Amino acid sequence: MTERERSSQPAGLPGGVRDVLPVEAAELRQLEEALGECYGRRGYREVMTPVLELAEVMDRAQEGEPTPAFRMFDDHGRVLVLRPDLTIPVSRLIATRMGERESPVRVSYVARAFRPPPPGRPRAAEQRQSGVELVGLGGPDADAEVISLLAEALRATGLRGARIAIGDVAVTEAVLAALDVAGAPAARLRSAIGMRNFVAWRRGVTALGIAGEEGSLLADLPSMRGEEELLSRIREVVPGAADACDRLVRLLELVRAQGAADAVTIDFGVLRDWPYYSGVVFEAYADGVGEPVAMGGRYDDLAGRFGRPRPAVGFAVGLELLHRALADVRGAGARLRGVVLAGALDTEIETAAAIRASGWRVIAATGGQAGAERLADEDGWRYAAWRDGSGYSVSDREQGELIRGGRLEEVVPSLG
Amino acid sequence: MTERERSSQPAGLPGGVRDVLPVEAAELRQLEEALGECYGRRGYREVMTPVLELAEVMDRAQEGEPTPAFRMFDDHGRVLVLRPDLTIPVSRLIATRMGERESPVRVSYVARAFRPPPPGRPRAAEQRQSGVELVGLGGPDADAEVISLLAEALRATGLRGARIAIGDVAVTEAVLAALDVAGAPAARLRSAIGMRNFVAWRRGVTALGIAGEEGSLLADLPSMRGEEELLSRIREVVPGAADACDRLVRLLELVRAQGAADAVTIDFGVLRDWPYYSGVVFEAYADGVGEPVAMGGRYDDLAGRFGRPRPAVGFAVGLELLHRALADVRGAGARLRGVVLAGALDTEIETAAAIRASGWRVIAATGGQAGAERLADEDGWRYAAWRDGSGYSVSDREQGELIRGGRLEEVVPSLG
Repeated sequence: MTERERSSQPAGLPGGVRDVLPVEAAELRQLEEALGECYGRRGYREVMTPVLELAEVMDRAQEGEPTPAFRMFDDHGRVLVLRPDLTIPVSRLIATRMGERESPVRVSYVARAFRPPPPGRPRAAEQRQSGVELVGLGGPDADAEVISLLAEALRATGLRGARIAIGDVAVTEAVLAALDVAGAPAARLRSAIGMRNFVAWRRGVTALGIAGEEGSLLADLPSMRGEEELLSRIREVVPGAADACDRLVRLLELVRAQGAADAVTIDFGVLRDWPYYSGVVFEAYADGVGEPVAMGGRYDDLAGRFGRPRPAVGFAVGLELLHRALADVRGAGARLRGVVLAGALDTEIETAAAIRASGWRVIAATGGQAGAERLADEDGWRYAAWRDGSGYSVSDREQGELIRGGRLEEVVPSLG
Repeated sequence: MTERERSSQPAGLPGGVRDVLPVEAAELRQLEEALGECYGRRGYREVMTPVLELAEVMDRAQEGEPTPAFRMFDDHGRVLVLRPDLTIPVSRLIATRMGERESPVRVSYVARAFRPPPPGRPRAAEQRQSGVELVGLGGPDADAEVISLLAEALRATGLRGARIAIGDVAVTEAVLAALDVAGAPAARLRSAIGMRNFVAWRRGVTALGIAGEEGSLLADLPSMRGEEELLSRIREVVPGAADACDRLVRLLELVRAQGAADAVTIDFGVLRDWPYYSGVVFEAYADGVGEPVAMGGRYDDLAGRFGRPRPAVGFAVGLELLHRALADVRGAGARLRGVVLAGALDTEIETAAAIRASGWRVIAATGGQAGAERLADEDGWRYAAWRDGSGYSVSDREQGELIRGGRLEEVVPSLG
């Protein structure tokens, strides 16, 4: 299996789901581990939540219409859902099972989220996500820890040149408040932003009839992106939004101090379609992938819906998307380090065990030399070995060399 | 969090599911890794299947009534299930996506299986399973690899004194065939065995009116357990079952040759309630846990139902059950190796990064010395550190010592 596998959706499976074959599965696990190790080094500790949740509990976290989710009834007639994301279940867990822990609470997760694919679109119904939540700290320093951790974690997977775009719901809200936009008109603007419909946003702004610099700033807001300088325009035109701008500047300073400098820009077009964000929102982009490979933000009002109000900030990395972004980074199918040994199921049991004890992979083959070589080539293992007179022969299937020796457990440790 | 957590089912969750808190989550991950490393050393490679499967595909693998499973409709009116086990999906994957791979194919998995808890019983609705499948080899040597691997893998998790009980559907079938028991009476006996109803078995045997040694052997069969000697009785009384007995003897020889000697006994009471087993069946038991921590067997007819007939043998370890069995083995809550550093979110960013770079966990705290000590105690980290004049102080919360030094990145590597 030296060729690259790309798992696609075959017949015999529901829409939007797929099998993952060994090469990709190993790569996904490597990503999980690289990310998890970064989380761990800052004290984030993994929690696990069930796949099945009560619909009423998940829906409670959201305003307006509930998230699309796979739903079913249990024996008591209650509606169950397959968790549509991880942020809500993990917030529920922290608010309930870890509600008595003092702040801050740092947790991580790696798990699947489930959403029915929209009719006629090939969206994945199951997505692997890896992420963190930092609960109980409300300042820009907490935002900065989480954003820096994201940059660090993406780099640790081998990804280069990722870009993190940061917006801030609090700045947008401060501008609206300072310009006295409230009620239905404000709701219409928020809804336009949620759907990323910038035309509807501009139309909504025009309808407000706000004149001069203020009107034009408000119209431009979702398309403003760049460095800290762009905040000066907001500060000048809408002094009431200065505090929110200062907070964002402080966040950027702290992120730069943590070494994630190149990666980060301001982008007021970053606005999520989830109703629970209350402050900073961010997305990470990688070359070659159309969707953000990670997204996150601050949602200070979420935990309160589970009875334990605390500020919170976090992110989720989409593992399949990240894997796709890394496709160019990975080396092309080198053979796996392992020895396929003919007879290891019966006559070579002890030799196989001795080699395994030194940390090597030993794969049992039947059918002598031919069987060992065939299995090595089929599965992409580098070495095939078989008993040969009083000793052993080892074929290096990558280099095309043949090595002979007496005791195989002495030959193998010298192999590459 | 030095106290042991035991996750129980709280309010706000569906029946039979639960949250897993950090201490247990880390322990479960350790189990997964220890098992996975053993699988890997014999060349088993992980695959991943979707949580959602088509009901008709899963049901195809089974005779008679379908497994209890969570079921729902998709947008096209097809019935979906949450996979009720891993053996069937993984067999489906190997028969379809890996159908062109030459034999043998070795895969592993670690994933959840889902079954609605029976009304009024506190059975888990979600179970974490870790297991392997060896596909394409039909001999007792393949059975022996898999059983030895199970023994090895359980030992690698730290479990001691596990017992593997081995039965063999082929021996039972050979005895029935040799005694001319077929059709409805044989089906009744198989059904009694499937339900572990040994009274019904004896009643069924009595109804057959088989006289003498043969009748009494058949009546005793499901309660026969012990070493190879018990097979001599079967061989003597029912010579037609001799081949099947020889195969089982050979299997046991090979398992003993792999060093799993103490752990293994014959037990014809081991019979699974799944209809797909065709040869050897086995269960692993551990002290303190009422259910088997692992089960497996040979199911040579399963792959054919997905269009690619090949012999197969495998097992699944129940991770929560194994975790419970290990409760006595684990050390009582030592503190975690990590430094909680006051000010690491803003003023101590560089120091924190330098210590992390040496592989240590550094957890950011606010609130100076008091904040760092409180968080260390709350979360069970061993060290709390804070800037103290021109240097740093480090409090060892386990030993109750205070260490002072100049540069923290030089002090920390010398800590335990």
